[in-house]
Amino acid sequence: VRVISVSQEGEFSLIARIAARLTEGPGVLLGAGDDAAVVAAPDGRVVASTDLLVEGRHFRRDWSSAYDVGRRAAAANLADIVAMGAQPTSLLVGLAVPGDLPIEWVESLADGLRDEAALVGASIIGGDLSGSEAVTVAVTALGDLRGRAPVTRSGAQPGDAIVLIGRPGRAAAGLALLTAGRRDHLLVAAHRRPDVRYAEALALAERGATAMIDVSDGLVADLGHVAAASGVRIELIGAAIPVDEDVAAVAEELGVDVFDWLAGGGDDHCFAASIAAEATSELTVIGTVVVGEGSVVVVDREAPKLSGHEHFRS
Amino acid sequence: VRVISVSQEGEFSLIARIAARLTEGPGVLLGAGDDAAVVAAPDGRVVASTDLLVEGRHFRRDWSSAYDVGRRAAAANLADIVAMGAQPTSLLVGLAVPGDLPIEWVESLADGLRDEAALVGASIIGGDLSGSEAVTVAVTALGDLRGRAPVTRSGAQPGDAIVLIGRPGRAAAGLALLTAGRRDHLLVAAHRRPDVRYAEALALAERGATAMIDVSDGLVADLGHVAAASGVRIELIGAAIPVDEDVAAVAEELGVDVFDWLAGGGDDHCFAASIAAEATSELTVIGTVVVGEGSVVVVDREAPKLSGHEHFRS
Repeated sequence: VRVISVSQEGEFSLIARIAARLTEGPGVLLGAGDDAAVVAAPDGRVVASTDLLVEGRHFRRDWSSAYDVGRRAAAANLADIVAMGAQPTSLLVGLAVPGDLPIEWVESLADGLRDEAALVGASIIGGDLSGSEAVTVAVTALGDLRGRAPVTRSGAQPGDAIVLIGRPGRAAAGLALLTAGRRDHLLVAAHRRPDVRYAEALALAERGATAMIDVSDGLVADLGHVAAASGVRIELIGAAIPVDEDVAAVAEELGVDVFDWLAGGGDDHCFAASIAAEATSELTVIGTVVVGEGSVVVVDREAPKLSGHEHFRS
Repeated sequence: VRVISVSQEGEFSLIARIAARLTEGPGVLLGAGDDAAVVAAPDGRVVASTDLLVEGRHFRRDWSSAYDVGRRAAAANLADIVAMGAQPTSLLVGLAVPGDLPIEWVESLADGLRDEAALVGASIIGGDLSGSEAVTVAVTALGDLRGRAPVTRSGAQPGDAIVLIGRPGRAAAGLALLTAGRRDHLLVAAHRRPDVRYAEALALAERGATAMIDVSDGLVADLGHVAAASGVRIELIGAAIPVDEDVAAVAEELGVDVFDWLAGGGDDHCFAASIAAEATSELTVIGTVVVGEGSVVVVDREAPKLSGHEHFRS
């Protein structure tokens, strides 16, 4: 099999190859191929967020497939839009890659971006391609609020419950396994490609969530942002955070306190939200909002050791 | 003077420093600091474009200041929005930088992005920060069509005139000077920071431009995109392209055919457009649209040698 590299293929030809793999949703009024795209914003407001994934910092090419990097890059951005209670409509992707990268890698990345976006009915509407030493994926996601107020970080009210959507700790456990040289465990897939519960988060916004956040730095760290923005104290019940059996088993195997992964691990793109206590039927309640000074406390144990991560210090 | 690096400062603290330098325009309903921003899209449609600038490919830190890189990164994206006839509203910026970069560099970059955006009344509404080996600036711009149809690349009609906004060749001459070891010439500034005529391009859209493009790959190459998308032939009159005196002088000094820079140089972010021949009063007409097969010909001389650039081949 002859492998064609990005530099052999050339920029314009590669862009045409990528474009041929993409599909356009109904809200795309003018897709990729012009100076800019045009997307419907029926609400009259547009929600926008951007995230970078850098090879060697956020992923390794020997640990994750191009397809999984695409899924994850899209997921990180779509989760931010959904955390505002908005319906994602579109993605724009800036991609910088080494010239010797096989074009199949770029094509698979595009497939991953497309497929993750399709989970919420969003399309890739534009992009840019450049050379670089390390693969860098810069994704911007746009969304529509459908007439609702955005669910910000600043709306948590004393008396609200804190609820959790998703299974925290799985990506952290997967990364620990990869770091330990294990690539065969099912949790490795959770690091490579998060399973984001977009529909549940949107339903929670509809149900009246007062604040919501995409958990990307860890539950305690991210609820800290909610507490600070809302000017409240969040009391987290450590024992109420659901312990995934697989995560618990890996924690025991690797000699890690599972709570560090549950409350401190990011990259699962769980959603944490505050909502009136009487509206929590069938939800996973993990804490309460009380009058206070913008902090998070874990009421039944010590705070997790691994809490948030700073990209220049990791 | 003690120089503090990005890694000494830390991610969250640096983000706070950047945020403190930014200003929010009237259309920003929820600015940076939440999972996503919310911007007014009164037209009910949003125009969006993204561009990457990579150190060593698009700029050199010893040739351009951080402030100029910020101005240029914003300009490249704002020009794409304006080329659609849309009013830019906002920018999102993904920034990857080495840990040893002084924080002043990042602050100046943010100032440059802010000041270029302010020229068209746009604001920086969000971003992401990561580590990397080379500085990478990924900008996404959003805009509003204010009730007008987008001015695409596909609307050029036989009989239209081709008009030009801006002074092509200045950035190419500046880059040639830098490459030749000259940093003192006034055209070097044209490479570092393009002087983009946003208001003239928006006025041209109002006047009824049938197609428009941001000239970033060179006049002939970019009009080639218009010709292909519109299914027409564009006849360019080489002698009608205004020759900047400074550019002509540098071309002579460096032994370059000035036409190669005028018709083949990118990065000035000039605008080329088609418009009904009777609507060209006081505009710079450089060619005509005729029935044909999607190509550009220069009717009075040979095509430029330097025509477009592919990032993996440069």
